[in-house]
Amino acid sequence: MILLVRADREFLCAPGDEVHTDLGVVEVPTDVAPGDVVESHLGEAFSVRALRGPDLFQHLERTGAPMMPKDIGLVVGHTGVAAGDRVLDAGTGTGVLAAYLGRAGAEVLTFEQDPDFADVARENMELAEVAERVTVRAGDVTDHLEELSGFDLLTLDTADAATVVEQAPSLLVSGGFVAVYSPFVESAREVELAARDADLEDIETIETIQRRMDFDDRGSRPTTKGVGHTGYLTFARKL
Amino acid sequence: MILLVRADREFLCAPGDEVHTDLGVVEVPTDVAPGDVVESHLGEAFSVRALRGPDLFQHLERTGAPMMPKDIGLVVGHTGVAAGDRVLDAGTGTGVLAAYLGRAGAEVLTFEQDPDFADVARENMELAEVAERVTVRAGDVTDHLEELSGFDLLTLDTADAATVVEQAPSLLVSGGFVAVYSPFVESAREVELAARDADLEDIETIETIQRRMDFDDRGSRPTTKGVGHTGYLTFARKL
Amino acid sequence: MILLVRADREFLCAPGDEVHTDLGVVEVPTDVAPGDVVESHLGEAFSVRALRGPDLFQHLERTGAPMMPKDIGLVVGHTGVAAGDRVLDAGTGTGVLAAYLGRAGAEVLTFEQDPDFADVARENMELAEVAERVTVRAGDVTDHLEELSGFDLLTLDTADAATVVEQAPSLLVSGGFVAVYSPFVESAREVELAARDADLEDIETIETIQRRMDFDDRGSRPTTKGVGHTGYLTFARKL
Amino acid sequence: MILLVRADREFLCAPGDEVHTDLGVVEVPTDVAPGDVVESHLGEAFSVRALRGPDLFQHLERTGAPMMPKDIGLVVGHTGVAAGDRVLDAGTGTGVLAAYLGRAGAEVLTFEQDPDFADVARENMELAEVAERVTVRAGDVTDHLEELSGFDLLTLDTADAATVVEQAPSLLVSGGFVAVYSPFVESAREVELAARDADLEDIETIETIQRRMDFDDRGSRPTTKGVGHTGYLTFARKL
Repeated sequence: MILLVRADREFLCAPGDEVHTDLGVVEVPTDVAPGDVVESHLGEAFSVRALRGPDLFQHLERTGAPMMPKDIGLVVGHTGVAAGDRVLDAGTGTGVLAAYLGRAGAEVLTFEQDPDFADVARENMELAEVAERVTVRAGDVTDHLEELSGFDLLTLDTADAATVVEQAPSLLVSGGFVAVYSPFVESAREVELAARDADLEDIETIETIQRRMDFDDRGSRPTTKGVGHTGYLTFARKL
Repeated sequence: MILLVRADREFLCAPGDEVHTDLGVVEVPTDVAPGDVVESHLGEAFSVRALRGPDLFQHLERTGAPMMPKDIGLVVGHTGVAAGDRVLDAGTGTGVLAAYLGRAGAEVLTFEQDPDFADVARENMELAEVAERVTVRAGDVTDHLEELSGFDLLTLDTADAATVVEQAPSLLVSGGFVAVYSPFVESAREVELAARDADLEDIETIETIQRRMDFDDRGSRPTTKGVGHTGYLTFARKL
Repeated sequence: MILLVRADREFLCAPGDEVHTDLGVVEVPTDVAPGDVVESHLGEAFSVRALRGPDLFQHLERTGAPMMPKDIGLVVGHTGVAAGDRVLDAGTGTGVLAAYLGRAGAEVLTFEQDPDFADVARENMELAEVAERVTVRAGDVTDHLEELSGFDLLTLDTADAATVVEQAPSLLVSGGFVAVYSPFVESAREVELAARDADLEDIETIETIQRRMDFDDRGSRPTTKGVGHTGYLTFARKL
Repeated sequence: MILLVRADREFLCAPGDEVHTDLGVVEVPTDVAPGDVVESHLGEAFSVRALRGPDLFQHLERTGAPMMPKDIGLVVGHTGVAAGDRVLDAGTGTGVLAAYLGRAGAEVLTFEQDPDFADVARENMELAEVAERVTVRAGDVTDHLEELSGFDLLTLDTADAATVVEQAPSLLVSGGFVAVYSPFVESAREVELAARDADLEDIETIETIQRRMDFDDRGSRPTTKGVGHTGYLTFARKL
C-alpha cells in the first residue's frame, strides 16, 4: 500500500488502483514507488509516499480508541522489543500496537474477543503489511493460557489483564517483559499487585504527561491548551 | 553476547568465555542459549538470558549520559521507524539510540565528533549485535550534509541540531521524519524555528513528564520522590 | 454587595436594589443578609449569599485575563501575606489579585498603565469591598520606584517586571518577598537573573501543572481533558 | 515573636529574651522592631525580622508532616478565605494551615485527636501570634458534628474526612466551601463521592505537580531533580 498525498489530502491505495478524488481520478501505476509524483486526469499532482507507522493511525479502520503512539513508543522503549521477538498481545482492538510490533520485526499472536473486530484487525494487518507476522485470533486469551508459552513480551490492554499477568512466569522466557496498559488507577494497581504475586521483577507502573511547547514571537511556554491523561503503563520482567 | 544472571548479578559474555564471578568460575558453553542454566566450578547456578534493548543501558560502555529508554521509545513511537528504514543519527554518544534503531532493523549512519567516543560506540554496536546495520563515523555531520540524502529518519542529539534541520528537505525522502532531542528550551526553540524555515510539516516540540505510581497498603498515589526533566523532543516531517 | 443565587443564576446586587431577572423582579431588602431567602414578584425564591473571593472571578469586570485562583493561592501560600502587610502590585489588570490581597487584610498600592483599565479596577475594588485597602494608581510603576519603599511584598505581572525586581532591595523591608508572574520562559528567566543581580535570597521559579481527577463507575484517573499552562511564578526574598 | 537572622542562621525569640548563639549572647531589646539590627556581646550583628507565614514552616514544632505552602495556598486561592470567616479545621497536626488561616484573619476551630499534639499545636498558635483566633480542641471532630454549624469553610486533613463531608450541608453557611487534603487516590475518591451524596456543588478533586525551573549559562529547563506528589485537594461548595 502507498499514500497519495497533496497538502491535507491523503489517499491510501495500492499499485494499479483507480482513486477518485475531488481533484480528479488518479490511475495509480502498477510500478508506483515512494517519491514518485502522479497526476489525476485533471492534471493535478499527488506525491507518492510510503505508509509509515504513524500513518496507521489515520488509515486503519477503528474498532475503538487505539493506543496512542506515545504509549506504544514507551512500550517499545521500555522492553526493547526487536526483530524476531515473540509477542503475545491482548486485546487487539484496532491493532495499532500489533502493527507497530510487527513492523519492528516481532512475531505477534494477538487475541481479540469480538470476532467482528478481529476481522477488521486482520484487514488492518494487511494494510499495515504485517499480516505474515501478526496472527489475529478471535477469542479470550484467558481461555488459552495453558497452551501458550515461550514469549519474549506480553502486551495487554484488556480489563482482565491481571489474570494474564498471574500466568506470566509460564508464558514468558527468562528475561521476558510484561507491558500492561490500564486507563484507571484501580486496574493499574490490580496489575501491579498481580505482578508482585507472580514474583516478577523490575515491576513499575508509570504515568506519562506530555505537553506541547508553544514558540511564538512573544516567547516560549508549554501549551495553554493542555494534554490529557491516556493511561498507566505497568512493566515487569521475568528473571 | 548473552547475560549470565543470578539475583542482582549480571555478567555480559560470549559463548566460550571463561567468566570469573564471586561465586566461582563459569565456563560458558560454546552452544549456550537463552533459557539454559549453567554452573560455576563451585556448583552455583546462573540463568542464561538474551541481551535485550534495556540491558544495553546497563552494559554498554558510557561516554556520556545516554538518551533514556523513555525518550528513545517516544522517538520510535512518533516516527514509526521500521525494518529497512535508513536513519541518519548525530551525535552517537554511547550509542544507545543507534543500537535500538539497529535492533528495530533500521540501517543507521551515525556521526560522533570525538574519535575516541566513536571507537567506544563501535564496540558498543558489536556488543549490541547491530554492527552490521549501524555505521559509526567519526566527524561532524554538518561537514557532510551535501553528500548525504535519501534518509527515512534523522535523529539528532547535538548542540548544532538546528543547522542539520535546515537541510532536512535534501536529507529526507518524502514522508520522512526529523526527531531532535534538546535538553534546554532555547535549543528546542531554535530547532523548531529551523524546521519552520525549512518548510517541514507536522512540527511539534513536546515535553514528557513521567512519574512512577506507589501502590501500598495505605493506598495508591504518584510517587512522592519526583521524576526529573530529561529533555524536549522536536518532531517534523517532510511532506 | 451580595449575590442572589438560584441554581445556575447569580445576580450581584446591593441591599435596596431592584433586580430584574427572568424569574421576575426582586426588591432586595435594605437589611438583607447572607443566608436569607428572597422572592421575586412572581414568587420565585433566591438564596442570598455573601460575595467570596472566587465569586470575584465571575462578577468583576474584566480588562484582560485575570490571574487564576491557583496562581493567586500559590502567591499567598509562598509569601504568607497577612493582615497589615503593605503590598506593591503592578499591573493591576482586572484587579483580582489586588482584591484577594485586600481581602486578606493587606494594604495594597497597585499600578495600572492604562487609565481606563485603572478606572475599571477601582470599580472592581468597590464591588470586592476592599476599596479602603487597595489604592489603584494609573501610571507606570517604574516611574515611581525611587519614591516607594517599606513594602512587605511586591507582586508583579508586567512585561518589565525585571526592572522592578532590580530595585526590590530598596522597595522591600527585611524579610519581604517578591512574587512575579511570567507567562513565558524568557521573561521568567529575565526576572530570576534580575533577582540574583539584586542579591535577593531564596530565589526560585516554579511551574505548576494542575489536573482534575475523574471518578466514575469504571474507576479513577486524571482527566483526559488536559489542563493548560498558565505561567511561571518567580519568588525571592530580601534577607 | 521576632526572628534574629544572619546568613543561614535564624533564631526565634521574643522582645526581652536572652538568646545564646554561636556568635555570642544577644540581649533582645524589649522595644525591638523588624528592621532593627542588634549585636551580640561579641559585637556580631543580627537583623531583626518579623515572623511571616513561610517562617512558620521552619520554626513551629512538628508533630507530623505539615501541609505544604503550595497546598495551603491552593486552599486559600480556591476558597478565597478572608478576614472574619469562620473555619472548622481537622486534624490540626502541626497547625500550619490553621496558623495561615488565622493570619488571614479567619476565626478557626481546629480538632486534633491526640491530646499531646493538641498541646503542641496550641503553643505553635502562640508562636504564630494567632492564639486569639485559633482554638485548638483535643478530640475527634466526628463526635461533635451535631453541635457545630455556621462555618464559611471546612478544611479537612484526616483519614475519615468523608464522614465530615457528608455533614457539610449542616456545618456550612450558604456559599461556604469544603477543602479536603487526601494523600491517596482512594481517599480522594471517597471524599468526592461523599460530596456528591451530600448534594454539594462545584465539586472537583485536583492534583498539582510543581517543578522548579533551572536557569544557567547553558539554557533554561525544568529541574532534572524532580518534584514529588504531595496530595489531592477536593473542593466543594454548598449552594
